[in-house]
Amino acid sequence: MSNVLEIIPLGGIGEFGMNCTLLRFGDEMLVIDAGMGFPEESVYGVDVSIPDFEALEEYRKDITAIILTHGHEDHLGALPYILKRFNVPVYASHFTLGLAESKLDEHGILGDVLLHRVEPRDVVNIGVFTIEFIRASHSLIDCFSLAIKTPVGTIIHTGDYKVDETPVIGEPIDLRTLRRYGQEGVLALLSDSTNATVPGRTPSERAVIPAFEEIFAEARGRIIVSGFSSSIHRIQIVFDVAQQFNRKVCVLGRSMQKNVEIAERLGYLDIHDGMLIGINEAKQLSDHELVFLVTGSQAEPRAALYQMATQVYKGLTIEETDTVVLSARIIPGNERAISKLIGFIYKKGANIIEEKRRLIHVSGHASQEDIRIMTEAVRPRFVVPIHGEYRMLFRHKEFVKNHLGFAESNIILIENGDVLELDGERAAVVDRREIKRTFIDDTGFEEIEYETVRERKKMAYEGIVTLVVTMNRETGELETTPQIVAHGVRGIDESNGFIRSAQIALAEAFTQTSRAQRQDTSLLKEYLRLELKRFIQKQTGSRPVIRPLVQEI
Amino acid sequence: MSNVLEIIPLGGIGEFGMNCTLLRFGDEMLVIDAGMGFPEESVYGVDVSIPDFEALEEYRKDITAIILTHGHEDHLGALPYILKRFNVPVYASHFTLGLAESKLDEHGILGDVLLHRVEPRDVVNIGVFTIEFIRASHSLIDCFSLAIKTPVGTIIHTGDYKVDETPVIGEPIDLRTLRRYGQEGVLALLSDSTNATVPGRTPSERAVIPAFEEIFAEARGRIIVSGFSSSIHRIQIVFDVAQQFNRKVCVLGRSMQKNVEIAERLGYLDIHDGMLIGINEAKQLSDHELVFLVTGSQAEPRAALYQMATQVYKGLTIEETDTVVLSARIIPGNERAISKLIGFIYKKGANIIEEKRRLIHVSGHASQEDIRIMTEAVRPRFVVPIHGEYRMLFRHKEFVKNHLGFAESNIILIENGDVLELDGERAAVVDRREIKRTFIDDTGFEEIEYETVRERKKMAYEGIVTLVVTMNRETGELETTPQIVAHGVRGIDESNGFIRSAQIALAEAFTQTSRAQRQDTSLLKEYLRLELKRFIQKQTGSRPVIRPLVQEI
Repeated sequence: MSNVLEIIPLGGIGEFGMNCTLLRFGDEMLVIDAGMGFPEESVYGVDVSIPDFEALEEYRKDITAIILTHGHEDHLGALPYILKRFNVPVYASHFTLGLAESKLDEHGILGDVLLHRVEPRDVVNIGVFTIEFIRASHSLIDCFSLAIKTPVGTIIHTGDYKVDETPVIGEPIDLRTLRRYGQEGVLALLSDSTNATVPGRTPSERAVIPAFEEIFAEARGRIIVSGFSSSIHRIQIVFDVAQQFNRKVCVLGRSMQKNVEIAERLGYLDIHDGMLIGINEAKQLSDHELVFLVTGSQAEPRAALYQMATQVYKGLTIEETDTVVLSARIIPGNERAISKLIGFIYKKGANIIEEKRRLIHVSGHASQEDIRIMTEAVRPRFVVPIHGEYRMLFRHKEFVKNHLGFAESNIILIENGDVLELDGERAAVVDRREIKRTFIDDTGFEEIEYETVRERKKMAYEGIVTLVVTMNRETGELETTPQIVAHGVRGIDESNGFIRSAQIALAEAFTQTSRAQRQDTSLLKEYLRLELKRFIQKQTGSRPVIRPLVQEI
Repeated sequence: MSNVLEIIPLGGIGEFGMNCTLLRFGDEMLVIDAGMGFPEESVYGVDVSIPDFEALEEYRKDITAIILTHGHEDHLGALPYILKRFNVPVYASHFTLGLAESKLDEHGILGDVLLHRVEPRDVVNIGVFTIEFIRASHSLIDCFSLAIKTPVGTIIHTGDYKVDETPVIGEPIDLRTLRRYGQEGVLALLSDSTNATVPGRTPSERAVIPAFEEIFAEARGRIIVSGFSSSIHRIQIVFDVAQQFNRKVCVLGRSMQKNVEIAERLGYLDIHDGMLIGINEAKQLSDHELVFLVTGSQAEPRAALYQMATQVYKGLTIEETDTVVLSARIIPGNERAISKLIGFIYKKGANIIEEKRRLIHVSGHASQEDIRIMTEAVRPRFVVPIHGEYRMLFRHKEFVKNHLGFAESNIILIENGDVLELDGERAAVVDRREIKRTFIDDTGFEEIEYETVRERKKMAYEGIVTLVVTMNRETGELETTPQIVAHGVRGIDESNGFIRSAQIALAEAFTQTSRAQRQDTSLLKEYLRLELKRFIQKQTGSRPVIRPLVQEI
C-alpha cells in the first residue's frame, strides 16, 4: 500500500453546486459533503443533479464516514442518495443534523442511519484520519471548516466561509484555531472560490440591519421580505427589526416554515413570544403591524412570492401599499425570471426594494481579502481552489499568486474526477477519471437516466414522428397503409395533407423491399426510418426524431 | 371618422426586443420599427420571435409606410416578414438601409420592395403625418429619433438613444432640433426605457478608448476582441488602436464580417489601407502584430470565440499568450453560458479582460440623467415609456415623476396591444387587444406554430408514448397485442418488462369495451389513452404525453 493521500473531487469543481470531495489514504476513505447541483436541464423534467455515487462502488469497503461542513443543499442535498448506497456514519453540527434529519425522514431512511453530532473544537478519530471541526462563518449557521490530520500532513478544508467577526447568531469564525494549524504546518488548503472574483471583504451578516431599519421605518403598509430560506441570520434580523417596529412576522412557503421551525426548536433563532404568527392571525392585524417572510426570491413559480405577485396565495395578493424586499442575490440563470417577477410586482403598484439599490443582502462567501485572511492564517504549502466555476477557480489562483506570493507550482487547479496525490512533499494530479452526474426528476426522489434526458432534448428541438407499419406475417404484404403520428413537428399537422402524401411514399418504399428484407425487422425498420426522414426533410425542412414500429399480424 | 390619434405597440413593451409601434389617425397608419425578439424557447427549436403581423390584417389598406429608427435586430429583424405581408415603402437612414438590404436579399425579396433613404433633418410627408428624422446617438451608427406631426399634436419617438456628445463616428445627438420641437409644443414623448434603472449618465462611445490603449500596450501576444457585430463605433476604435500599436485586424465570424463590409462600403468605417487582413495573411504575421475581432460575446456555441476557446476555428485556437477582451455586456439569460466560456478561456491559460474589471464596454441606452436631458429638451405633455421590461418602464415612470416633476396622470404606462388614444388634450388607453407573437424556427426563415412549440414543451418535460391498437374491421377484435413506443419517459425502457405488462393491461382494457364503443374511434382512442395514462402513472409516477392510434384492418 502506497504512502500517499488522494484527494478526489466528485463535484463542485468547475460548477456551482454538487460539492463532494473524497479523501483517501490506503484503504480508508472519507467523503466530505454530499451536495446537490442545479442543472440547466429543468425544462426536461430534471429537478436537481447529484454526484455520480456509482463511481464510489469500487471503494465500497473503504468508505468510513461522511463529514458535512454545513447544511446548504449544495453540500447536504445528496445525502439521502449516498446513504441509500453506502450506509456509513455521518458527522455534522447540531443544526446541520437538524436539516439532515428532516431530509432523511422525507426519504424514509431516518431510522436506518447513524448520525454523529459534533461541536466546534471537537476532534474525532476516524481510522488514520483525525478531524477537528472548526467554527466557520457563512450565510448559514453552525458551519465548519475542517482540519484533517493525515499520515502525510494536515489538510484544511474551508467548507463555505467568509471572515465574519460579527455574525448575527453564534460565534465568529475561529481564526485562532486555524492559525494554530498554520503554525504547526498545513500541507494543503482546500478553499472556497465562490467569491474569488470579488475584491475587498465580504460584509458581515450584520451589515444589512441599517437598511432593514430604514425600510421598516419608511413602510406604511405591509412588508414582504423574500430571501433564501436557509439564511437563518437574515431571518433573525427580520424578527428583530419587526419587533423593534411593532410588527409581527408571518412565515409563508414550505421551506421557510420548515427552517424556521428547525432553527427555533434547536435554539438558534431567538423569537420572542407572540412574534411569530399564523396566516389567520395575520389576517386579523392591520397592514402596518405585519411582516411576511416568504420563499421565492429566485422567482420560482410555485413559491409564495410569485403566487402573491401573480394571483392569490392563501388569500393574499400583493397590494399597492406593500413594500417588497428582495433580500437575496440573483442566482445565475434566474435573471430573466426575476426581472419578470419584479415587473409583476411593479404592476401591482407596490414599492420594491432591490438588492442593487440598498444593502439588504450580503454574500456568505469569502471575497479576495477574506481569502487573504484565511490563507495567511493557514499558511499551507499547497492551495487547492474548490467550490466554483472555472472562472472563479482561476481568479482564486491568480489572486493567491499575485497577491499572496504563492508560486504557480504550489497552486493546484483540479477538476471533478481528478486524483490529486500528495506524499507530504509533492502534489500532482496522477489520474483523471470520467465523472458523470445523476439527474433526479422533478418529483425530487427518482433518478432519471441520462439517456432519457437526451431523448427529451432531441425531440424538444424538432419533434417526433412515430411510423407504424402493419405487415401480414404469411404474405409479407402491408395489411393497411402505414400510419404516421407526429407530435411537435413543424410543417406537419393533421389537416395539411402532408401525412397522406407521406403514407403513400412509405407504402411505395415498402413495396420496393424484397421478401428477405421484410423478414429482418430491425433492418426493415431502419430502412423505413431513413425513407421517412428523407421525405420529411425534403418536404418540410424538419428533422424530427423518427421511431418506426413494424408489427406482423 | 374620429379626430384622435391611436398609438398601439405590437411589441417592445414589457419585454426586451421585438420593438414595433403603430401610429394611426383615421384610415392612415404608420409602422415604426419591425424588430425581432429573443424568446426563451430556444431549446424548443425557436430561433427568434416577431410581432404578430396577423393582427395588422384588419388595417391592410391603411398602412402607408414603415419607418425604421435604426438597424439593430430588435428594430429591423422582422422587416422581411412584415414586407412579405404588406409591401409598403420603408424609410430609413443610409446605414440602416445597408443592413436592411442585406437582410431582404437573404429572404429573396430585395427586388420587390421600395426603400427610401433619408438623412438627418429630412422631413417627409406621409398622408396626414409629417415626419422629421432627427440624429440620435446610440451604440449603432446613423440612428434616428422621430418627430411626427399629427393632426392632434407632435409625437417624439426617441428610438434607442443615449446623449453622446462625442460619438466615435458621425455627429452628436441633435438636441437643438429636439429643443425646437419642445418649444413648439410636444404632445407625447415615446421614450427608450432600457437603462431607466441606471443612475447618472451613460458614457460616450469614446469612453472605452483609454482601456483599449492600456490593454494593447500591455499585451505581448495576440489580442482577441469579442463584441457585438453591430457596434460600429467599437469596431472603429479597435481598428484605430490597432493601428496605433502596429497591429493588423482580422475579422472573424459571419455577422461581424458582413457588418464591417457594409459599414466600410457605405463610408462609415475609416480603415486605413492594409489594416484589415484575411485569415491567411494573419497566419503569416507574428502574434504581437495581430488583433482578431470576433463574434461570440454571448457565448453562442457556433460563433468564432466559443469555437476558438473549445476547439479549432479556421485553424485558430486560443493560446496561453493571448489576451481576450470581452467588449460587450451580458444579455440577460446568457450568464451561465458566458461564465462557462470564460472558464474555457482561462483553462487555455489566456489573459481575459472582462467588462466588470475595466471600462471596455459602454451601453447605448439612456441612463436616468440622459432621460432627464431628453425629457427636458422635448418638454412633452405626456411621457410614454417604451422599449423595456415592465421593471424598466416602471422605473422610468418613477424617475420622471420624482425627479422631473411630471404628474402621475401625465405618465402613461402601456402594454403590447393597448390602444392609447390621444385627442390633443387627453391620453387614455381605450382598448386592449390580445397580441400574440410569431415564432421563427432555427433555420431563421420559417414560421413555427405556437401549438407545435407547446407540444414540444410538454413532451420535453415528461416524454411521449405512442399507443398502437390494431383492430379487425369485421369482428372488432384485436388483431395483435397493443404496441407501445415510448420516448424520453422515465421508468420505461425496452428491457425492463414494463412495456409487456402495459400491453397486457391495455389488451385487457380493450376487451372490456362493447362493440358499440369500438365503432366510435375517437371515443375508443380517448378511453385507451386514459387507461394507459393511469397505468403508467401508477407504475412509474411518470405522466408522459400519450398519443393513441387505432387502426382497422
